[in-house]
Amino acid sequence: MPIHLDRARPAGRQVEAEVRRLIRSGALGAGAALPSTRVLAADLALSRGVIVGAYAQLAAEGYLVTRRGAAPLVAALPLEPRSQLEQDVHVAAARFNLRPDLPDLALFPRADWLSASRAAMRRAADTDLAYGEPFGSVELRAQLAAFLSRTRGTVGVHNRIGVHAGSTQALFTLANVLRLNGATRLGVEDPGHRWRTGTLAASGLEIVPVPCDDEGLRTDRLDGLDAVVLSPEHSFPLGLTLSPHRRRALVQWAVANDTIVIEHDYDGHFRYDRAPTAALQALAPEHVAYVGTASAILAPTIRLGWSLLPLRLVEGVAGYTARNLFALPRLEQLTLAEFIARGYLDRQLRRARSAYKRRRDLVAATVPVGRARGGLFVCLPLGSTADEARVLAAARADGFALDGVQANAIGSAEPGLVIGFAASSEPALQRALRRLMAAARP
Amino acid sequence: MPIHLDRARPAGRQVEAEVRRLIRSGALGAGAALPSTRVLAADLALSRGVIVGAYAQLAAEGYLVTRRGAAPLVAALPLEPRSQLEQDVHVAAARFNLRPDLPDLALFPRADWLSASRAAMRRAADTDLAYGEPFGSVELRAQLAAFLSRTRGTVGVHNRIGVHAGSTQALFTLANVLRLNGATRLGVEDPGHRWRTGTLAASGLEIVPVPCDDEGLRTDRLDGLDAVVLSPEHSFPLGLTLSPHRRRALVQWAVANDTIVIEHDYDGHFRYDRAPTAALQALAPEHVAYVGTASAILAPTIRLGWSLLPLRLVEGVAGYTARNLFALPRLEQLTLAEFIARGYLDRQLRRARSAYKRRRDLVAATVPVGRARGGLFVCLPLGSTADEARVLAAARADGFALDGVQANAIGSAEPGLVIGFAASSEPALQRALRRLMAAARP
Repeated sequence: MPIHLDRARPAGRQVEAEVRRLIRSGALGAGAALPSTRVLAADLALSRGVIVGAYAQLAAEGYLVTRRGAAPLVAALPLEPRSQLEQDVHVAAARFNLRPDLPDLALFPRADWLSASRAAMRRAADTDLAYGEPFGSVELRAQLAAFLSRTRGTVGVHNRIGVHAGSTQALFTLANVLRLNGATRLGVEDPGHRWRTGTLAASGLEIVPVPCDDEGLRTDRLDGLDAVVLSPEHSFPLGLTLSPHRRRALVQWAVANDTIVIEHDYDGHFRYDRAPTAALQALAPEHVAYVGTASAILAPTIRLGWSLLPLRLVEGVAGYTARNLFALPRLEQLTLAEFIARGYLDRQLRRARSAYKRRRDLVAATVPVGRARGGLFVCLPLGSTADEARVLAAARADGFALDGVQANAIGSAEPGLVIGFAASSEPALQRALRRLMAAARP
Repeated sequence: MPIHLDRARPAGRQVEAEVRRLIRSGALGAGAALPSTRVLAADLALSRGVIVGAYAQLAAEGYLVTRRGAAPLVAALPLEPRSQLEQDVHVAAARFNLRPDLPDLALFPRADWLSASRAAMRRAADTDLAYGEPFGSVELRAQLAAFLSRTRGTVGVHNRIGVHAGSTQALFTLANVLRLNGATRLGVEDPGHRWRTGTLAASGLEIVPVPCDDEGLRTDRLDGLDAVVLSPEHSFPLGLTLSPHRRRALVQWAVANDTIVIEHDYDGHFRYDRAPTAALQALAPEHVAYVGTASAILAPTIRLGWSLLPLRLVEGVAGYTARNLFALPRLEQLTLAEFIARGYLDRQLRRARSAYKRRRDLVAATVPVGRARGGLFVCLPLGSTADEARVLAAARADGFALDGVQANAIGSAEPGLVIGFAASSEPALQRALRRLMAAARP
């Protein structure tokens, strides 16, 4: 048996590894007898005890069949096709970053975050390092209650605020809890986030597209739905704000039919000319589930989101989260709680808002769209005869990262580009917009 | 209208908040006319523009109905029952901590973790702060491939290693992917982790209890199953190791029937008298999905787990994770990758193993059970006539945190206590064990 030993490492482990390798490679086939422990020990100039131990280990692992008074045999292992290496998907950074779903990551307050994280570690008790609560840490929930009330006009204290591993996980959980509670038909804004639709559909609920017009979601098209998901402050990809009349009609529908509205507030903290409209949730907290996220206001990789729930959904959401994730990471939750308590999040929002406002103005000056009232993107109609897919493909081939309207529609929609203005610095944004407009006008 | 202004804050926002509060509290009922902007401005000694802005905001939020040339009316908002505050569940720290699922959290290497976390933040590019890959960061997967191969004898490089938000999420995802691939019946060790069974059942698969004997899972009871979940190195709660014969029979079954074995390796890194048995996964990597976690080797609150998958499951697992979570937090993944690369994890394992070995010996000297070969707990049979639920309730009332065998069984099982020995320092462990044994012998 060709066994090569490296004297620097424990001999027994090396014998095990070598025999394992010979068996796995097929060099030692099923039924082959191994050298006796005495012979192999002599060959390798090792004590017999080392070989006995190695053989015992390999027998315990299933590679060898031991026989009383005889050398072990290679066990008959099932043959498997040899694995193929998969290619890793390399996502290159875009040359022209107009992604509508990203904040400017260069603005992420790394030093503040690290400092809050050190403080969180210092303050955490040993017991805080065990499993956390499936509904989130009370410290963070209390901070979020005050922050969301102050910045988004929500109502409700921490007992109805759940922490999630991002808003996607919040939406996935809510859809599953609604299904478990007997819901079958879930309405979504159409057009609407395609990944959000995918996540909601993965719950097993039937997804029903609800059309939108200039006032936002058509609230006269909700018959027969058990719940509806929308972004009243700023819809994706059209950037619509739900009109006051529709806001009232929507909560009236929810209360009258005892249905649930899921308010997906993914970029509602950004409104540039006045304070944002308060969350719809405040109008009917027992029928509107508010879902928010750290992605747009800090950075997506934080992977923390939150929900503000009708009380009757609290137990179901905590229970489903326990099945799905058992608990949320507590050090990150304590870090965010500290980050909010120190005023860092409000400061970060002020900084980002003022940068994005300048970029919003830059877009309005370069691209034929109105000034966006809020959010991180504008929607540029291409004209009903345009081929959106072709325009998008050409732009992507040219190094643009951006999105399209039809690409996010279930039913028919007018072609349009969804242009994010937050992710790039002003000079980079200007270059990207000019190049895009030059390409758009042949 | 009783509006009280605090001159330190913006007047308009305060007017909005006060009117909102009056409407929500019922003090201003539906249909009530508000003072005209001129009157209210005069009353509050504010400019009329401030009141116009506040009313417009409240109208946009749905609280007011504006009328051309007249003061606004309070909108008819649906009435909801007043919310009740839920009580937060306060989980008191146990006086006698014998939890079988926890490492000693006082051993968590806080300084090393913070230092790795600073390094990860320093090295992260801005683009690393965007959404991560749903299958995990390549850096961490590469580190895990080497670590798991070295410490658990797994085979396979990073292309088949997925990162998860804990091993619960890995199990939940695997069960769902198997269901989506057409599986219907999933076997589980019985008795087995009750929370694991709950998580697996939440996927919608039918859970089939598979009995165990002294050699571990009965591999002659797998007919008709599409997959089976077990912990071959150390089962919970009985602490069984799957015999060599059964290991071979299990992989033969999986390969012959093209079924899947899920190897749940929750505490397999702890073996006290010799090296752990290598993972079952190495015997049939295309039929065994290995699932591990940072919970026992670091701390549960890290919420990172991993899977080593048959290649045909990789795409499904990444896809389901994208629906469920979109992506995993990258800073924590980079921190763990750095922590492994610096050798901190191996050092931590050596430290913990040597502490737990002393505690294992202490248990063997105090409680009538054999010396555990590995893991974080021992199982103490109570005798077949004992009332396990009553013994557990009495112990818990006395301040013990521990678990029971029947409490984790689907079918019938002999009563027994599951006593964790890792979570408490030696003096605390000794006090707890003596008190437990004194109570057990009346």
